[in-house]
Amino acid sequence: MSTTANFHMSPDEFRRWGHAVVDWIADYQRHVEALPVLSQVQPGEIRAKLPAAPLEHGEAFDAILADIDRLVLPGITHWQSPNFFAYFPANNSGPSILGDLLASGLGVQGMLWATSPACTELETHVLDWLVDMLDLPAKFKSNGPGGGVIQDTASSAVLCAVLAARERATGFASNERGTDGRLTAYASTQAHSSIEKAVKVAGLGRQNLRLIPVDERFAMRADLLARQVADDRAAGLVPCFVGATVGTTSSNALDPVAAIGRFCRENSLWLHVDAAMSGTAALCPEFRFIHDGLELADSYAFNPHKWMFTNFDCDCFYVADRAALIKTLSVLPEYLRNQATESGAVIDYRDWHVQLGRRFRALKLWFVIRHYGVEGLRHHVRRHVELAQEFAGWVRASADFELAAPVPLNLVCFRHRAGDDFNRRLLERINQSGQLYLTHTVLNDRYTLRLCVGQTHTEARHVERAWQLIRQSAEADARS
Amino acid sequence: MSTTANFHMSPDEFRRWGHAVVDWIADYQRHVEALPVLSQVQPGEIRAKLPAAPLEHGEAFDAILADIDRLVLPGITHWQSPNFFAYFPANNSGPSILGDLLASGLGVQGMLWATSPACTELETHVLDWLVDMLDLPAKFKSNGPGGGVIQDTASSAVLCAVLAARERATGFASNERGTDGRLTAYASTQAHSSIEKAVKVAGLGRQNLRLIPVDERFAMRADLLARQVADDRAAGLVPCFVGATVGTTSSNALDPVAAIGRFCRENSLWLHVDAAMSGTAALCPEFRFIHDGLELADSYAFNPHKWMFTNFDCDCFYVADRAALIKTLSVLPEYLRNQATESGAVIDYRDWHVQLGRRFRALKLWFVIRHYGVEGLRHHVRRHVELAQEFAGWVRASADFELAAPVPLNLVCFRHRAGDDFNRRLLERINQSGQLYLTHTVLNDRYTLRLCVGQTHTEARHVERAWQLIRQSAEADARS
Repeated sequence: MSTTANFHMSPDEFRRWGHAVVDWIADYQRHVEALPVLSQVQPGEIRAKLPAAPLEHGEAFDAILADIDRLVLPGITHWQSPNFFAYFPANNSGPSILGDLLASGLGVQGMLWATSPACTELETHVLDWLVDMLDLPAKFKSNGPGGGVIQDTASSAVLCAVLAARERATGFASNERGTDGRLTAYASTQAHSSIEKAVKVAGLGRQNLRLIPVDERFAMRADLLARQVADDRAAGLVPCFVGATVGTTSSNALDPVAAIGRFCRENSLWLHVDAAMSGTAALCPEFRFIHDGLELADSYAFNPHKWMFTNFDCDCFYVADRAALIKTLSVLPEYLRNQATESGAVIDYRDWHVQLGRRFRALKLWFVIRHYGVEGLRHHVRRHVELAQEFAGWVRASADFELAAPVPLNLVCFRHRAGDDFNRRLLERINQSGQLYLTHTVLNDRYTLRLCVGQTHTEARHVERAWQLIRQSAEADARS
Repeated sequence: MSTTANFHMSPDEFRRWGHAVVDWIADYQRHVEALPVLSQVQPGEIRAKLPAAPLEHGEAFDAILADIDRLVLPGITHWQSPNFFAYFPANNSGPSILGDLLASGLGVQGMLWATSPACTELETHVLDWLVDMLDLPAKFKSNGPGGGVIQDTASSAVLCAVLAARERATGFASNERGTDGRLTAYASTQAHSSIEKAVKVAGLGRQNLRLIPVDERFAMRADLLARQVADDRAAGLVPCFVGATVGTTSSNALDPVAAIGRFCRENSLWLHVDAAMSGTAALCPEFRFIHDGLELADSYAFNPHKWMFTNFDCDCFYVADRAALIKTLSVLPEYLRNQATESGAVIDYRDWHVQLGRRFRALKLWFVIRHYGVEGLRHHVRRHVELAQEFAGWVRASADFELAAPVPLNLVCFRHRAGDDFNRRLLERINQSGQLYLTHTVLNDRYTLRLCVGQTHTEARHVERAWQLIRQSAEADARS
């Protein structure tokens, strides 16, 4: 409800309530650590408190804001808590939130260069910066035939990679005539579910996604990839896409990108490298080994919205040959024609992803990089890895727990030696305490706990307390 | 750069700079009307001002914020200007910006119910509200087999509709074995380019999208749809999807949903109705005729981020049978398993779209509905339609200009009688003035100007001034 006759929130009202919301967030940042990490509500509990029908007349903004505390907060799982160690992180930071706020305030829709040149050019520029910051292959820069674009998520990125691979393999005929059930794609048994989703969406069919076995480090066996591709070719199929992962979701395994890449080159297969969380580690020279062989990839994605203090959503997707991607996704109806597009001198990012409309997401990324500087970002990534390594050391030294996988970076997979049922109960007890949030996976058929250090404000004391709580919970269970 | 040793922006710094950003946006709202609507920069001009490499050390926030005025603003096309009449609007409002700010601050990732129950339950609830607010068919509510979800854009929504249609038509075999080039889809020649994009992405092939001719009002000919489907069936093809549009992008034409729907029912075709902009009109009972026949649709989408004061991105996508959609898009790797999901008592929206991760977008929508109330939203939609109708009246009464299409709602398609070249020059002259931004289309092979009234702060005086400027520009051109 506005005090003006026209129902709008006036600029002065916006100023007043905007300050109130900023203050609310600042307070939240200060207190989030004390809140139960995993929401403790039951299914339907939040909805039951909401009015059945919307109101005919507007409400005062302070009433709306009060409901955030009253109705919403109990139903929040606090991804921004320093005690959040579940899944992969989705961290944020002050400069990112404010960059995103400016994007909302400007309200531009950057589908074409012309619909806001700054939205496109800042994005191209910052994505080029990131090539240098992560020491990625120069071919992903926009000054050659390649380039980068912000996608919402790594799922959308891998879909675009599968589509471009599909089209390159069929001479862009699938776009015209549809797919024919003979195209095959490859990823390890440990690859993210988004690859299966992409293969289904793109009309290749789940059965044509070959899940290649992994070695004892949960990394793809390049020799078995080669054997499978040969078998498929012999069977008259058309291999077109390989998805390699730098930091799998289950265990942070690193596929041998160099070996896979050489094979893909020799066999004209599109290689996409998904480094959704772990790519950020390459800010630090000592972790750049994770990208060995990346110069052989056709496309690459990592998510600043996971581990680089940039709030969701923000995935950076790079291709070595932007023409293949654009030719795959381009449509040009009359109502989008304009001089800048026809001049060929500009990028129109709408041809780089499924969506037409696009938000000004480069702003938050630019704010994060400028606020922290490369030095600041590096500092925190390094610290997170150190903390995870310390935790891994405690597990290694423990009589009751064991590591379940190598720990290359900031994810520790571990388990109590007392077996699956014990670990399952242990996880539930820990999460129900609200003091900590971990999730699980299954490795070598055994139930495994995962602890990922990547939240913006996670410090040594949080990781120490996590270990203490895990041990205490295990002891309590053993006694009960 | 932070004053603290750890590089982070502290809560107190966030408070200070957050207030500054809010003030910047309030000032922008006050002054945007005076800025040139279409950015006047040349390709490369923005990038040329940006430093070649990111800085090693972080910068002060006031330096970053100052660059918004200095570097970014000249490259902005002001979608939030009341003089923006181009494309379809992407309007926003104070309550929406603040709801979105809270979403950024909370930083939750709502891929599963468990990862923030409030994110899921508020979304379901508000989407049910909108069914009542727009008087949509009750089958789109979540209390039966249907339900709604927020997608980013109408392009993603139609892709999901095409995928569900593909799977329903093949007994979910395309997901397994891939498509076979025999599935066909249908839309009018005036349908949005996103349908062609979706058909290509889904592996059906562009040639299998039949563009059905339209009548003199640019609406799909249901009789010709029937004929084409019969021809395709006779040729051994498998028709599966029809996309009808309520308010085409070119001319705001309304396809005959009831006639198309009856045919789709009889022929087991999935009917998707795209009402991206115009759906919002149904807030007003007098405009609900646009949805006649919608009870026959399988899916429906409209974008609050276009005309309902909710900042980009926010598309509401409804399905009558959520099981078909979920079965099409579901993947369940071990690391996402949890008790709530397995109980079957909750919605996990990750199975409703391509992406896995998702932002808490329901917050901004909730804020908009509560701030304006149904009454406030209706007021503005009604007013926008009135203003467009007035403009259409002036065109109709003019000796030099003519209407190029019917004007059912808030989009006016018109042209000067002096021919295509004249209209092309006229549009360029108007847009170069910076005082106004219009775009064009082609209708019946003739170059046509489009004026869409939908910006949050567009009032009578802006539309009056637009008409004055258009006439003056035409007179100046005729003299030169």
